[in-house]
Amino acid sequence: MDRDNRVQTLSEADCLRLLGTVPVGRVVYTEHALPAVLPVAFEVGPDGRLVLALRAGGTVVRALDGTVAAFQADRLDPATRTGWSVLVHGRAEVVRDPALHEHLLLTGPRPWIDGERQVFVLLTPELVSGRELHTCAHGAQLGTGRPH
Amino acid sequence: MDRDNRVQTLSEADCLRLLGTVPVGRVVYTEHALPAVLPVAFEVGPDGRLVLALRAGGTVVRALDGTVAAFQADRLDPATRTGWSVLVHGRAEVVRDPALHEHLLLTGPRPWIDGERQVFVLLTPELVSGRELHTCAHGAQLGTGRPH
Repeated sequence: MDRDNRVQTLSEADCLRLLGTVPVGRVVYTEHALPAVLPVAFEVGPDGRLVLALRAGGTVVRALDGTVAAFQADRLDPATRTGWSVLVHGRAEVVRDPALHEHLLLTGPRPWIDGERQVFVLLTPELVSGRELHTCAHGAQLGTGRPH
Repeated sequence: MDRDNRVQTLSEADCLRLLGTVPVGRVVYTEHALPAVLPVAFEVGPDGRLVLALRAGGTVVRALDGTVAAFQADRLDPATRTGWSVLVHGRAEVVRDPALHEHLLLTGPRPWIDGERQVFVLLTPELVSGRELHTCAHGAQLGTGRPH
């Protein structure tokens, strides 16, 4: 039996659907010329863009704005060694439109760290990849409940 | 009340101790000139180096070997919005010594994806940083059970 069959590549649609099932992901940015990783509250917006909720004034917001960023989220079960991981690359832009900012304050994700002011960063997915690990025993997929 | 007091910077010792409490982290490497993030089973070795368990033949092993890599792990509770996140930078090297490889096969972490052969990568921490988020209400820290 090829044990590699535990790994399944996910479609872009499945990746975005799975991203919508978790409240936090990890944004990768560059700080002091090294890659940094920060857990961030986020949601998948109705237009497919990721809405990241951050505290204003952090270095991460300055580092992200106007760049191509990477964003990763996963759900992993150490007991069964199953789960999924999704990676998104895309342009990140701070929301500067006051009306959109107000709208997101009411309807969008809240940053994990409360602060005086919050900032929303929109990440437009350009490359989306992901994979799912499932058990050899029954071939069931986590998170989808249906075969591909 | 300054709500920023929810964030606490962790000492290197606390970072390494917390890393030892989780079975999986995320390694950051470069693929096609873009940052990629992969969940990886790992352990903190007795000498403080991180032992990553990977499947042989993957692009990630080639991308990591001999480079300065970033490794991140966290434990986050969406219900209370508390938790911790630790980031390690250091040199990654594939274990080539047959005796050490055999030893790690017996005692080290198992890769999440089983395969014909497995590879261990040692990551020597050079920069270690982390932070913990705790609730304003009682100032208790997740994962430590004691005040700093």
